[in-house]
Amino acid sequence: MIRAGIVGGTGYTGVELLRILALHDQVEVAVVTSRSDDGMRVDALYPSLRGSIEICFTKPDVESLASCDVVFFATPNGTAMLMAEQLLARNVKVIDLSADFRIKDAAEWAKWYGMEHACPDLIAEAVYGLPEINRAQISEANLLACPGCYPTAVQLGFLPLIEQGLIESSHLIADVKSGVSGAGRKASVATLMSETGESFKAYASAGHRHFPEIVQGLSLAAGKQVGLTFVPHLVPMIRGIHATLYAQLKGDLASQLQSIYEQRYADERFVDVLPAGVHPDTRNVRGSNNCQISVVVPQGGNTVVVLSVIDNLVKGAAGQAIQNMNLMFGFNEKHGLQTMALYP
Amino acid sequence: MIRAGIVGGTGYTGVELLRILALHDQVEVAVVTSRSDDGMRVDALYPSLRGSIEICFTKPDVESLASCDVVFFATPNGTAMLMAEQLLARNVKVIDLSADFRIKDAAEWAKWYGMEHACPDLIAEAVYGLPEINRAQISEANLLACPGCYPTAVQLGFLPLIEQGLIESSHLIADVKSGVSGAGRKASVATLMSETGESFKAYASAGHRHFPEIVQGLSLAAGKQVGLTFVPHLVPMIRGIHATLYAQLKGDLASQLQSIYEQRYADERFVDVLPAGVHPDTRNVRGSNNCQISVVVPQGGNTVVVLSVIDNLVKGAAGQAIQNMNLMFGFNEKHGLQTMALYP
Amino acid sequence: MIRAGIVGGTGYTGVELLRILALHDQVEVAVVTSRSDDGMRVDALYPSLRGSIEICFTKPDVESLASCDVVFFATPNGTAMLMAEQLLARNVKVIDLSADFRIKDAAEWAKWYGMEHACPDLIAEAVYGLPEINRAQISEANLLACPGCYPTAVQLGFLPLIEQGLIESSHLIADVKSGVSGAGRKASVATLMSETGESFKAYASAGHRHFPEIVQGLSLAAGKQVGLTFVPHLVPMIRGIHATLYAQLKGDLASQLQSIYEQRYADERFVDVLPAGVHPDTRNVRGSNNCQISVVVPQGGNTVVVLSVIDNLVKGAAGQAIQNMNLMFGFNEKHGLQTMALYP
Amino acid sequence: MIRAGIVGGTGYTGVELLRILALHDQVEVAVVTSRSDDGMRVDALYPSLRGSIEICFTKPDVESLASCDVVFFATPNGTAMLMAEQLLARNVKVIDLSADFRIKDAAEWAKWYGMEHACPDLIAEAVYGLPEINRAQISEANLLACPGCYPTAVQLGFLPLIEQGLIESSHLIADVKSGVSGAGRKASVATLMSETGESFKAYASAGHRHFPEIVQGLSLAAGKQVGLTFVPHLVPMIRGIHATLYAQLKGDLASQLQSIYEQRYADERFVDVLPAGVHPDTRNVRGSNNCQISVVVPQGGNTVVVLSVIDNLVKGAAGQAIQNMNLMFGFNEKHGLQTMALYP
Repeated sequence: MIRAGIVGGTGYTGVELLRILALHDQVEVAVVTSRSDDGMRVDALYPSLRGSIEICFTKPDVESLASCDVVFFATPNGTAMLMAEQLLARNVKVIDLSADFRIKDAAEWAKWYGMEHACPDLIAEAVYGLPEINRAQISEANLLACPGCYPTAVQLGFLPLIEQGLIESSHLIADVKSGVSGAGRKASVATLMSETGESFKAYASAGHRHFPEIVQGLSLAAGKQVGLTFVPHLVPMIRGIHATLYAQLKGDLASQLQSIYEQRYADERFVDVLPAGVHPDTRNVRGSNNCQISVVVPQGGNTVVVLSVIDNLVKGAAGQAIQNMNLMFGFNEKHGLQTMALYP
Repeated sequence: MIRAGIVGGTGYTGVELLRILALHDQVEVAVVTSRSDDGMRVDALYPSLRGSIEICFTKPDVESLASCDVVFFATPNGTAMLMAEQLLARNVKVIDLSADFRIKDAAEWAKWYGMEHACPDLIAEAVYGLPEINRAQISEANLLACPGCYPTAVQLGFLPLIEQGLIESSHLIADVKSGVSGAGRKASVATLMSETGESFKAYASAGHRHFPEIVQGLSLAAGKQVGLTFVPHLVPMIRGIHATLYAQLKGDLASQLQSIYEQRYADERFVDVLPAGVHPDTRNVRGSNNCQISVVVPQGGNTVVVLSVIDNLVKGAAGQAIQNMNLMFGFNEKHGLQTMALYP
Repeated sequence: MIRAGIVGGTGYTGVELLRILALHDQVEVAVVTSRSDDGMRVDALYPSLRGSIEICFTKPDVESLASCDVVFFATPNGTAMLMAEQLLARNVKVIDLSADFRIKDAAEWAKWYGMEHACPDLIAEAVYGLPEINRAQISEANLLACPGCYPTAVQLGFLPLIEQGLIESSHLIADVKSGVSGAGRKASVATLMSETGESFKAYASAGHRHFPEIVQGLSLAAGKQVGLTFVPHLVPMIRGIHATLYAQLKGDLASQLQSIYEQRYADERFVDVLPAGVHPDTRNVRGSNNCQISVVVPQGGNTVVVLSVIDNLVKGAAGQAIQNMNLMFGFNEKHGLQTMALYP
Repeated sequence: MIRAGIVGGTGYTGVELLRILALHDQVEVAVVTSRSDDGMRVDALYPSLRGSIEICFTKPDVESLASCDVVFFATPNGTAMLMAEQLLARNVKVIDLSADFRIKDAAEWAKWYGMEHACPDLIAEAVYGLPEINRAQISEANLLACPGCYPTAVQLGFLPLIEQGLIESSHLIADVKSGVSGAGRKASVATLMSETGESFKAYASAGHRHFPEIVQGLSLAAGKQVGLTFVPHLVPMIRGIHATLYAQLKGDLASQLQSIYEQRYADERFVDVLPAGVHPDTRNVRGSNNCQISVVVPQGGNTVVVLSVIDNLVKGAAGQAIQNMNLMFGFNEKHGLQTMALYP
């Protein structure tokens, strides 16, 4: 039994951590912080947690967090980097769900996130928490950078092709669609129901912050710099990401792709290659930590299409964070994460 | 460990039973039947169950079902009554999620359901599976009639007032709203996304099949015949029921109602009386077996308003069925039902 | 051809006025004000208006507004009452879509709206803009108070019964459901898609600002004070209001109600009594100025149920305002308002 | 004033034709046919049309249709080709909203639509009704083939690049998303609200019927055979199509693209090139006949991204059909089509 703290417990990734951890029998949620709701019962803000979470929000404070074995940062970008060093010094493992430690190049990070990095020396120490490529390192990590939601869906979709050098990696296309919970729980006109319901649009087509993270991950897997066009879209639903990926095959590989994908993910409990001809649907992973993937080569051409779906708040955030925690503390990787998708 | 069978596994209550039972460690799902999908893997129809349910649909057949300790009927009305007797004779407990055994008066049943009852003698033996009023009987039951979704939300909302005789029971009003999954998984124009999305309407205002069931249950609790106006509505969402109940208070009871409700449900794990002033929201019970209730007397008048929410597929169907199963087999009533609502 | 100004053009009622007025060939939209977007083209904020509205937002200013024949206030409560007097003095007709002039009792207004009224003397002069009860007065009005969205749906539903004294008016119940656009276009956590999608709840059950307005209107029609319980609910859709109204009939009137409703509204182009047995559906009035109504007496009892639907932004706001404008300027009442609902 | 007939008036394109034509003052809707609803008032099926359409459905019959000047086919594929010849022989102009006359190669048509063409000789005579490329021919047409919804959005998006030979036309990618009304108004499990709400998926990735139509149109514009990968997706909303198009630029053209698009569509009332940096949103064309388009070259690369949105039932079907009718009868092309999008 370990003690866990959550910094920034009032956002969607925070409450999702609570939903999953409340049923994880190796973890006690000891501290949940919120500057704005200090002193309020957590279940007063989130009545869905009544009967399961009994504690109150407290102010974020290194001293109380230092009593934990692990601290999750479910905060806006720029917060974790201010507290991570102190917690690590107190032997607390840190799992950051924000972007603070995802990008290895501090200058690149500063360019995309609009601020100087507060502890560039720590970046090298941080382990990128995508278990499907990094499991061994994660098990040894003290500071873990959880991948973004889009990067998770896109990397898991492209990896089998990239790792084996089967596609032209200079012209990758990722047309990705996300439910609105990805925009977080903050007052905003743009994500009102009246603005996002019954409508569909692309956004940030000129450059989205997850772009450098995806490029970094795929380039690492390719062993060389990849070229990517990444267009995110907003779907009138709450949870779910659907990545539609396009690339040019280097040869006549269409008939082998299904087994290449199945073999790549044969030992992965949370990545599920669907039978040939089945399209993944975001609802089939809603609330679960699964990624479901299909691969197809339409019309007998040489353009491969990969379809990859996750729940942005689970495999794209809180679930993946807990999968990483399980690895970091030697628990069964699946522990507490076996819940199935809520269908319909 | 008991063996469970599900007859009618291709509807929404069937797949919801599978979702919950797959994680219930006292139950093995041994048989799932479907006439139309005989031979197909269950997880081919429901990819959300991949990795959790490995069996195939079979034809409904007494012989194979008789190897189970319990059989759930998640079938259209009129099916369970054709097989229940044979299964009971083979010492299989029967939990019927359809309406076949809910109404004690076979003639009344025939009037509302448009067919003669196939085994009227069994009706008296059936126990009405609302644990909050019937727990002891349920523990002894062999044939269990699960309440309808609307009746569950309405009865749990009215019971504290009715049982103590605090309201004029001759003019009860239940204005109830349901998500579209209540209409089931069958091809139909009326429940297409294009027909039900972005719209709201009442239906069956002249008479809905759940009317006699609610009247029967409330009359039993009142010790006399109650008068009810029941208007169901269709909400553009998938899961959830919200009952808004109105009645006239017999006296100046406004200040006592909160504690009356809290006391009535103090020992009920799945009925949660919210703090005064908090409105229940269907999303806070989505995917969970909880009923959340508020009571308010607006404007200092003598009209009491009760707000009661459930997930129609969980506390209104599959979850309640499993809660009943736990009682019938001596398991902890909460076993396998502790999952929290999926918020957001 | 008249010149119209719109104060507060950046909210949903403002843009809806623009959508309708752009096709009204007796009206030129001359001024659209917005403090925050001063100088910006209107169609830059609202690309749906591209090609139809060519002007820019300006600061609200009496001088420029005084060049108009009519000024619409699509502002938050408390703004129109600060400018109305000056505009009226300049012979500009004022149509207020906010609540400033709806309540005849200034003290009651202050209680519900949390501020002192700035020009209580003007209240008596204001005409309540529900053409179905007030057509003659509206034709003569200089200052018009447009009804709220809930009050429009509820009053149109109850009027035939109230006017003829057919129901017990001391215990009226209005269970009303609204799409989220009723909450307006302002940054807010509560009306995010992630908070309101796929969920249903009641709110403000202890007292909503439209309560005194409905009571005032129905009491006037009844010739005595009515008693009302009013519970608003939030529906996961953008546009639409559905009122479900309950009352006790004074006699055995069930068989006459259909013709009573049909006769009451026989000459009303925008109130449509549906054939017996048909339920109104908000989508059938979405985008149109229609109110569709059904009346039913379930189970042969003496409780009458009235179902009344409108589009909250059209008949509940901008459409009704333009219907009033047509009357005030002697245009055909239907002019510019014949657009049908957008189905599906 | 001309007389119009609609064959297949009970589907979504049929009712959308009625919605628009009811306000078109040069057209009288004289005949609306439906086999299944023969004799029923049209507004009994579609209460949104009450007050505007007074006629009844009749059986489809050449004799009565021959009394019309124009007949619209809003039927499933395979119906128009059985009646077109007879109507043309009676001097009735035929506008087919189905796919029967879209594909010039009858063998190709038979392959994709699964039946032999009934009147291959007529195919050559049919004019493809995309006014933005075919206006002159349309004005002379007697038999008009309305483009499919996806082909409209995709072709309008690619045309400026294709016509001028600015992109590698051998590897075009069209990632297209549609609301569910595109699937039509027919009983089906797959398009139930419970199946399509709150979810997103690709479908028919191996080959969709609109594929050969798009290839035909773009190849014609390119003057050579193009290569296309086309992946359609289903969006949890009712109306709207969003095409995201990708291609490789042949040179350093990024800075010229905005003006190339603006010039190409400068004279088109229904194609609107948005200012640089603005993303189109399907809601901004919902209910209108507009196509809104943006073009962007992300990250300074050579991949051009075009975003193109339409309402699938208007510019993608009924609106475009009426735009064509206006041209065929010498009316103003915009007549009856000036309605703005319904926002929010």
